[in-house]
Amino acid sequence: MVIPAAALALVRHPNMRFILVGDQAQIEAELQGRAELASKCEIIHSDVAIAMDAKPSQALRHGRWKSSMWLAIQAVRDGQAHAVVSAGNTGALMAMSKFCLKTVKGIDRPAIAAIWPTVDAECIVLDVGANVGADTRQLVEFALMGAAMARALLGMEKPSIGLLNIGVEEVKGVEQIREAAAFLKAAPLPILYHGFIEGNDIGHGAVDVVVTDGFTGNIALKTAEGTAKQIAQYLRAAMGQSFLSRLGALLAQGAFRALKEKMDPRQLNGGIFLGLNGIVVKSHGGTDETGFASAVDLAYEMAFSGVVERLGADVAHFHEKLELDGAA
Amino acid sequence: MVIPAAALALVRHPNMRFILVGDQAQIEAELQGRAELASKCEIIHSDVAIAMDAKPSQALRHGRWKSSMWLAIQAVRDGQAHAVVSAGNTGALMAMSKFCLKTVKGIDRPAIAAIWPTVDAECIVLDVGANVGADTRQLVEFALMGAAMARALLGMEKPSIGLLNIGVEEVKGVEQIREAAAFLKAAPLPILYHGFIEGNDIGHGAVDVVVTDGFTGNIALKTAEGTAKQIAQYLRAAMGQSFLSRLGALLAQGAFRALKEKMDPRQLNGGIFLGLNGIVVKSHGGTDETGFASAVDLAYEMAFSGVVERLGADVAHFHEKLELDGAA
Repeated sequence: MVIPAAALALVRHPNMRFILVGDQAQIEAELQGRAELASKCEIIHSDVAIAMDAKPSQALRHGRWKSSMWLAIQAVRDGQAHAVVSAGNTGALMAMSKFCLKTVKGIDRPAIAAIWPTVDAECIVLDVGANVGADTRQLVEFALMGAAMARALLGMEKPSIGLLNIGVEEVKGVEQIREAAAFLKAAPLPILYHGFIEGNDIGHGAVDVVVTDGFTGNIALKTAEGTAKQIAQYLRAAMGQSFLSRLGALLAQGAFRALKEKMDPRQLNGGIFLGLNGIVVKSHGGTDETGFASAVDLAYEMAFSGVVERLGADVAHFHEKLELDGAA
Repeated sequence: MVIPAAALALVRHPNMRFILVGDQAQIEAELQGRAELASKCEIIHSDVAIAMDAKPSQALRHGRWKSSMWLAIQAVRDGQAHAVVSAGNTGALMAMSKFCLKTVKGIDRPAIAAIWPTVDAECIVLDVGANVGADTRQLVEFALMGAAMARALLGMEKPSIGLLNIGVEEVKGVEQIREAAAFLKAAPLPILYHGFIEGNDIGHGAVDVVVTDGFTGNIALKTAEGTAKQIAQYLRAAMGQSFLSRLGALLAQGAFRALKEKMDPRQLNGGIFLGLNGIVVKSHGGTDETGFASAVDLAYEMAFSGVVERLGADVAHFHEKLELDGAA
């Protein structure tokens, strides 16, 4: 799946080059008959693969030095590669990335950001699963990271930021969200703090960056994916129910194709690890070459966007201002 | 909106009777020309309405004795009514219901349950917003309440229960979910503990009852509603894009109508307050008469199902067993 995806991505970005990390013999066999791609590839051999069900701590202890995952991340650390893309074990990828690349100075914990399609465009949602829970400081940092990504990747000058919350008047137990709101309102950065948003505001496109803890974000993301899949099933069933509806569906097949593409999770495939000194993109484990190629495209755009440098500068600026104001 | 909704519900359940609580003159004016409905109605006058933005504690302090909300709940407490339905302020409705009806013995906190459409049927999700956060005991009680509702309302003998979680191997910070899982596995009740589920499993229909804390549940529910709305917009846009697609949509209009009905949030309108000594159904604030009538239907079915008694018996049984086992 990885090598056909690389071939696809190369068509779109002819100046890409790849370092393929894995079993050399297997990779070479897959590259047979792809002379164009092969000329852009370098192979780093590894016959140690991190199992999908390995615990992150185990992966770090046992698989560290020789595994394909570690060697790929190391290539980013050593400046051989601009970004790493993996469809492997998310927890292990995060643990190894943190250990190898380190977090950006001033950032407490990295987050995973997702690009979420909205009615008119797309927004960035984070954290979607790097952490379980988040305190005030982490929420503020997620906002900074999301804003840096929106500025660098989506070209927004002053992205709007929303904090995901529930719509009740007397909110108890979410002091950290209210405190984060107070910080963001006063943040000396080119962001537009929008306020609290609710679950239905995400897809509506209320804000450019949605900030939440990794538990809630992960559940929101997967719930939206599940709902889209469910509606696609309803639609198929409804269109097959009578002769007229089948005929109608046939006539409208161009429209259905466009809709299918719009709803295709492979088009926006990839969780972006933010807050690290390097670019790491996690592709869905169950994707195909189209989906993996999307993740490769995303890594390429991230590498060109200067998001890591932007993030570092924003965080330094923010912390400096806070100290000057005596609020840190 | 309430009176046309009552008329609609009465058509479906001719033996219903209503106590309408509010401004008598206004209610009488609305009942003009609805002789059939008027003959089934009793009016309790009140000219105090709880504002939609009132804080629950304020509503309890100031609006308590005379407000239409309080008088309606009191009618349930005093056995005049079997259930109360309101489209008012959720927080105030919950606070007043707790104060007036009290929680079922052995239940720490009430929850709000939603009926969530799945691919083939429907499931019950709770809590969707009564509480922010939930500890182990509350999660277990939510499971008991959801199971009692599934048995009483949906006629399931042994409902399956899933705990909403995120799909990572090493889960930190969610000890309460893992502890609740251990309790449910051993629960001496006719339930089938399924295990952890993820966001996309809800609409897929993986389980009959989805248990989560009120913060996560509320965000999952609203995210799903937002996604459904978003896809409906995509679909409309796709169907309008060419002559052929418009013609196709015209031919398939019966199918689209069926789909629209399936996706119509008014069909399953209503949050059910569980864990109280009485039935309280909260309709969406922004709904119309069709939606409010659905909430009335739901209250009617709940009243007939004996869910309150079932819940009380289940909780007593569960706590008794736990004490016998020395595990309480």
